[in-house]
Amino acid sequence: MSVGTEYYDWLVALRRDLHRRPEPAWREFYTTARIVEELEDIGVDELYVGPDALDSDARLSVPGEKTLQRWADRAIEAGADPDLIDRMAGGHTGAVAVLSRGEGPTVALRVDIDGLPREESASADHLPAAEGFRSENPEAMHACGHDAHATIGLGVLRAVADSGFEGTFKVLFQPAEEQVGGGKAMAESGHLDDVDTLLAAHVGLDHPTGEVVAGIDGFLAVRHLNVRFSGDGAHAGGHPNRGRNAVQAMATAVQNLYGIPRHQDGATRVNAGRVGGGTASNIIPEDAFIEGEVRGETTELMEYMWDEATRVVEGAAKTHDCTVTIERDGEAPSAKSDAAAVDLVADAAATVDGVETIRRRDDLGGSEDATVLMRRVQQQGGTAGYLCIGTDHPGGHHTASFDVDERSLQIGVDVVTGAVHSALRGPE
Amino acid sequence: MSVGTEYYDWLVALRRDLHRRPEPAWREFYTTARIVEELEDIGVDELYVGPDALDSDARLSVPGEKTLQRWADRAIEAGADPDLIDRMAGGHTGAVAVLSRGEGPTVALRVDIDGLPREESASADHLPAAEGFRSENPEAMHACGHDAHATIGLGVLRAVADSGFEGTFKVLFQPAEEQVGGGKAMAESGHLDDVDTLLAAHVGLDHPTGEVVAGIDGFLAVRHLNVRFSGDGAHAGGHPNRGRNAVQAMATAVQNLYGIPRHQDGATRVNAGRVGGGTASNIIPEDAFIEGEVRGETTELMEYMWDEATRVVEGAAKTHDCTVTIERDGEAPSAKSDAAAVDLVADAAATVDGVETIRRRDDLGGSEDATVLMRRVQQQGGTAGYLCIGTDHPGGHHTASFDVDERSLQIGVDVVTGAVHSALRGPE
Amino acid sequence: MSVGTEYYDWLVALRRDLHRRPEPAWREFYTTARIVEELEDIGVDELYVGPDALDSDARLSVPGEKTLQRWADRAIEAGADPDLIDRMAGGHTGAVAVLSRGEGPTVALRVDIDGLPREESASADHLPAAEGFRSENPEAMHACGHDAHATIGLGVLRAVADSGFEGTFKVLFQPAEEQVGGGKAMAESGHLDDVDTLLAAHVGLDHPTGEVVAGIDGFLAVRHLNVRFSGDGAHAGGHPNRGRNAVQAMATAVQNLYGIPRHQDGATRVNAGRVGGGTASNIIPEDAFIEGEVRGETTELMEYMWDEATRVVEGAAKTHDCTVTIERDGEAPSAKSDAAAVDLVADAAATVDGVETIRRRDDLGGSEDATVLMRRVQQQGGTAGYLCIGTDHPGGHHTASFDVDERSLQIGVDVVTGAVHSALRGPE
Amino acid sequence: MSVGTEYYDWLVALRRDLHRRPEPAWREFYTTARIVEELEDIGVDELYVGPDALDSDARLSVPGEKTLQRWADRAIEAGADPDLIDRMAGGHTGAVAVLSRGEGPTVALRVDIDGLPREESASADHLPAAEGFRSENPEAMHACGHDAHATIGLGVLRAVADSGFEGTFKVLFQPAEEQVGGGKAMAESGHLDDVDTLLAAHVGLDHPTGEVVAGIDGFLAVRHLNVRFSGDGAHAGGHPNRGRNAVQAMATAVQNLYGIPRHQDGATRVNAGRVGGGTASNIIPEDAFIEGEVRGETTELMEYMWDEATRVVEGAAKTHDCTVTIERDGEAPSAKSDAAAVDLVADAAATVDGVETIRRRDDLGGSEDATVLMRRVQQQGGTAGYLCIGTDHPGGHHTASFDVDERSLQIGVDVVTGAVHSALRGPE
Repeated sequence: MSVGTEYYDWLVALRRDLHRRPEPAWREFYTTARIVEELEDIGVDELYVGPDALDSDARLSVPGEKTLQRWADRAIEAGADPDLIDRMAGGHTGAVAVLSRGEGPTVALRVDIDGLPREESASADHLPAAEGFRSENPEAMHACGHDAHATIGLGVLRAVADSGFEGTFKVLFQPAEEQVGGGKAMAESGHLDDVDTLLAAHVGLDHPTGEVVAGIDGFLAVRHLNVRFSGDGAHAGGHPNRGRNAVQAMATAVQNLYGIPRHQDGATRVNAGRVGGGTASNIIPEDAFIEGEVRGETTELMEYMWDEATRVVEGAAKTHDCTVTIERDGEAPSAKSDAAAVDLVADAAATVDGVETIRRRDDLGGSEDATVLMRRVQQQGGTAGYLCIGTDHPGGHHTASFDVDERSLQIGVDVVTGAVHSALRGPE
Repeated sequence: MSVGTEYYDWLVALRRDLHRRPEPAWREFYTTARIVEELEDIGVDELYVGPDALDSDARLSVPGEKTLQRWADRAIEAGADPDLIDRMAGGHTGAVAVLSRGEGPTVALRVDIDGLPREESASADHLPAAEGFRSENPEAMHACGHDAHATIGLGVLRAVADSGFEGTFKVLFQPAEEQVGGGKAMAESGHLDDVDTLLAAHVGLDHPTGEVVAGIDGFLAVRHLNVRFSGDGAHAGGHPNRGRNAVQAMATAVQNLYGIPRHQDGATRVNAGRVGGGTASNIIPEDAFIEGEVRGETTELMEYMWDEATRVVEGAAKTHDCTVTIERDGEAPSAKSDAAAVDLVADAAATVDGVETIRRRDDLGGSEDATVLMRRVQQQGGTAGYLCIGTDHPGGHHTASFDVDERSLQIGVDVVTGAVHSALRGPE
Repeated sequence: MSVGTEYYDWLVALRRDLHRRPEPAWREFYTTARIVEELEDIGVDELYVGPDALDSDARLSVPGEKTLQRWADRAIEAGADPDLIDRMAGGHTGAVAVLSRGEGPTVALRVDIDGLPREESASADHLPAAEGFRSENPEAMHACGHDAHATIGLGVLRAVADSGFEGTFKVLFQPAEEQVGGGKAMAESGHLDDVDTLLAAHVGLDHPTGEVVAGIDGFLAVRHLNVRFSGDGAHAGGHPNRGRNAVQAMATAVQNLYGIPRHQDGATRVNAGRVGGGTASNIIPEDAFIEGEVRGETTELMEYMWDEATRVVEGAAKTHDCTVTIERDGEAPSAKSDAAAVDLVADAAATVDGVETIRRRDDLGGSEDATVLMRRVQQQGGTAGYLCIGTDHPGGHHTASFDVDERSLQIGVDVVTGAVHSALRGPE
Repeated sequence: MSVGTEYYDWLVALRRDLHRRPEPAWREFYTTARIVEELEDIGVDELYVGPDALDSDARLSVPGEKTLQRWADRAIEAGADPDLIDRMAGGHTGAVAVLSRGEGPTVALRVDIDGLPREESASADHLPAAEGFRSENPEAMHACGHDAHATIGLGVLRAVADSGFEGTFKVLFQPAEEQVGGGKAMAESGHLDDVDTLLAAHVGLDHPTGEVVAGIDGFLAVRHLNVRFSGDGAHAGGHPNRGRNAVQAMATAVQNLYGIPRHQDGATRVNAGRVGGGTASNIIPEDAFIEGEVRGETTELMEYMWDEATRVVEGAAKTHDCTVTIERDGEAPSAKSDAAAVDLVADAAATVDGVETIRRRDDLGGSEDATVLMRRVQQQGGTAGYLCIGTDHPGGHHTASFDVDERSLQIGVDVVTGAVHSALRGPE
């Protein structure tokens, strides 16, 4: 089965347009608007945008109003429909599209749409740079392939819409995955409550073009932490002893966060991913922060890391006579793909042109807030699976030279469409 | 002698206007424009602005064009004359005003005019907040009294202009003192080349209102350093081992910079005043920076600290497999006030209303790039001195609650005017 | 099958005698002498002691002559035969005993005999303290059950000797396992060259009395490192700047060794297990050391940790202007128990009184230089397995309150004897 | 005036004998015995040894009985009189010798006699090595010249004894200066209670042979701290997460102790002079210690450092979930030489052969528990002074290559004898 060859040019153009305008968590204004335009073009039965697609209060890591406004303005400048942007006010990005064709199973596909707050490579070796669709904004980059995910989501929707089926098919365009901030809001939106089968998809993950992994497991549970140290400023030359140095506290915390002991029961992670502090060379720094995360192979291991991390941070603050606040931010549990979902994908992949290798299962070794949605569906008796569409990527995920092989867009659409069709048809 | 009582309201209004619009190094657009307006109102014989007041190439720590533009725009919004702002393009702030009255000695007064990049207290206890002249910009604050310095500079100029004298009197309104970035540019501008006597003044320094220190010594030599660590980013969950963590390198450097051994020969200082790194919680940080400084009681001690600091930074980079660049930025030597200058000030202070205590000499225990100007004048055979006008200040210098007692504005004008008059008259 | 009940009192008395006199790596003088006495009492066909049991040059982590002499003297004081101690001169401890009964397979059992350099609990809750067989030496403790291992080795030998079999049976009493220092010397001694089946056994490992694990896998590859930092001393009050502080270098290294990134491919470990430096409060420390180790789930992961660790140590030395030497010390690869060996043990355990649970396989999650011997036998086409005899142990391995449940001595003898008999009989 | 030329050979032989057998704090058994022998040979009116020379309970940093016994045994082996050693049981070393010649002032000289716990250079460049009087014990060295001090003390006593005077002259041979542990015990012994004038002397301090400093000031106040961290051990491979790592706590403390901010009011010092922890490579370290010290130019500055240090240590313990104990150990205040004492020394030095330069005052920049004695005498209305006899020393104080120029022994005897004579004579 191959449903999508005719869409190829459309897929590539769409992906490149999104790639050029990456938007981090809750700032996916242009991205959402562009998706909505395509959805309107495809024609869907129900369309939920922003506040209607999410449980607003369950959103995590939403930036301040000023930041949101800056990105909203930028989206409008880039051509987004101001009315649409208005509907997303306050950082209510994302959308849910529904196709209803009478009685039958309810199947959902979840794709994530946010970019990362990092600069993209400008090297001539980097295809997006060479071909002119590199990020236009030095503050952000699609360094994890979510531009491809959004594209595949639209591609599958179009393919399914164009075909005959009975039942209901939903595509959830989820914001803020990178902050582990959007999964909960979408899981609690109500849109999953009637879902029998949920699929989520990711490209790459070190699997080459032509390889499909039917079921991804080994999700690390994750929790983000925001740490703020407060001390006292002082003139660094005249009164060094009068300060209480928040940067020293932060540095002590960083040194010791990475030094949290490995655990006998499995993989753990810790990262102080963004840090800062102080105001000027000649002032003892009175404020500092760490935006970090802990992960574990199980939720228990993540909790172990969390307990250690909070104690380390408090100890570091005490060491430098600073006060500290520690906030929990986005989090996601570990999860496992159900065998039934793995079968659906493996069977579909077997019929798709360009698929050379099908691996039944592999471990992610990272985190994903798709697990919040998967657990939701599994807890209500449904089936959930997470698959990977291999793609040759020159740089690693989250690096400046990450890119996807666009041939995998078509493969992704074909594999997922096949699996969705089977799920809609239901067990025979 | 008291020349200034009639100016009191003018002084206070001027100081409060400057206080409301603090501008850090090389961004003193509004401040310079306001000074120039006053100078034009007072009437001076020669007026040099921006590029004419400085050796442009000798400027240190000039920010990027974008930052400069943002502050220039803000100055115009605040009412500064756009033509004046134009003359300061590229961060050429500051001014030199000259009064020429025939043959006689050349006397100069140097005041600094920049603010600090920190937020001001909004507490009701904080007079500028209570009285409505708190900084309008959360990014900056006059936390070191340079608003008072600029005001005193204008006040003295007006007082001297209104009086009879023979010789030449210059006031140098120097930008970028806090970055130790403007002194060199002003020292090498040519405006000091004919100066017989140079005075510089500072308010506060833990001396109360009514106290005057006729000669400040004990300037710490200082050098700023800008450190940039570069490593490799990677997905913090999936590939933690693929990163080369620039934030770990930075934290290691911070820990060990503060741990540089004390020196047997005298006071030393080190500060990692502003640090940062990384982009997002889930990316191993690939970049990090430290903006810091080292100081020493002598230039040799400062060089000792510099050597240690650069080695520490390189060792920290190596420890985390990162590369590092270390840039020297603004610097100033140590210096001493000449006895003749101390005499001038002490004698003048003895006749001023409101002066209760005259201390002949005291140590600064901090740094000041006035020392670059002082050394310049001293090396060409002139006399240089640095005096302090005491002022009650509730918070320490560089802290959020710093403020000056406005009675010291008048005292400052009177003392300096007296000393300048004596210097113009020359030794009898 | 139960061969050993009659030996129970003998086993307990033997184990308690060894427990009372623990001896760390290459200092097992009393222990070896005691084993040899028992072997002579049992009657063996060949007996190799010290230099005859080992490849002398392949020994790792042998302490200095003075330390060896001190322990040898102590062994003689405790009643060891001085002639036997003489044969172990230079730290040639350990023994190999052989029973030869005509043609047939060659089967070997390896047990380790060394103690740990730590103090034993004196708490009344701690059975060895309550019953009077606590370590007599505060410098050492059998905190890992090697007293039980040596006892089981002798028990199995006696049981096998008393029974009929055809073939050759060897017991290898290996020194210096805790330093990963004896396995190589025994593997290269020649005594393994004709071995068809090698078994090694450990008690405890968090498995309770009554549980047997037929095949242990998941050995972490390990390498020890000895780091020496050299700087310069100086009077800490008078000349702090003249020192080059080796303790600061060591502390920097410790902080960053524990901070080596986790690896995506599996478990890693690092420990700075023993550190020290400096001579007196008022001298800047000129020397410091770290005795540590790195581990990995695979040998590649161990090599990754080694590379990171050496770079960290060099960076830390540079940071404090010290020189550093890094020595590789004992190491062991990872390994896997062969299925045939697992079968032997599982089948034998099924017939032993007191065995309640048989687990086919489990992971060690630690390191063992038995893997050097296992690889040797496997590489020459033989079969190797590592089994665990569960034992209730109140404290964890290597802690002050570790102890074994003596009922497991008999179980251990019975299980291993059964497996050895089957191996001697060979496949039917 | 030159009283001592005839003693020169005796001085050198005596100094070399003491140099060969350095003994650290409270272990000066051989040294005290040797001094007592010389005193008996010279003939004194009163002689107090050990418990009679000290307030036993005021001794600080006394080592354990076992260590004391080892050093006492060694002293007897080296030829010390066993009866004398007996009198010093429990670490009661040191002596007070008194010459009484009728009515007149009471003058005291205090010299310290202990060595340092460090190895001496064996280099051929190092005179004691070349000439065969290098320390016989790798655990200790006279690296601060106290061998010369004891020698000068005896030399002055002999010179004064041989001359005519009226009054009382005491020499206090004080133990444990390097640990700041003996001054208090001697100050509270009662032997100072009738002293009108106290002199203390030190050689070297970067002053060359031929230079005398009549009054040393700038003593840094000092306090020693003993820190013990306790965590939990665990197998480093199997259960890394079960440990609570005392070495990580110690390393964190070391990093941050050296990072305590410099103080605006003057010089401060901190040193983690001896540290250690853990037992074996494969055990998570459960214990660790720091033997360190803090100093300040004033007692207040020392207290500032103490407060910071204790907080740092507690924060570091918390960071790694360890408990910690912090003990105050030896301490000494700052002090100043009285002008009258400075005059005595300067006048005496002016008449001594070999003295080329007399400096009236200089700063020590280190600490000395002579200050406890000086304050005692000053508080009871007496005069106290601390002088320095310059000596060329190839290595710095406390380093392996420290040595004294023996010509300064004679100069020291002559200068001090002259000053003592003047003091005995009293003001004319």
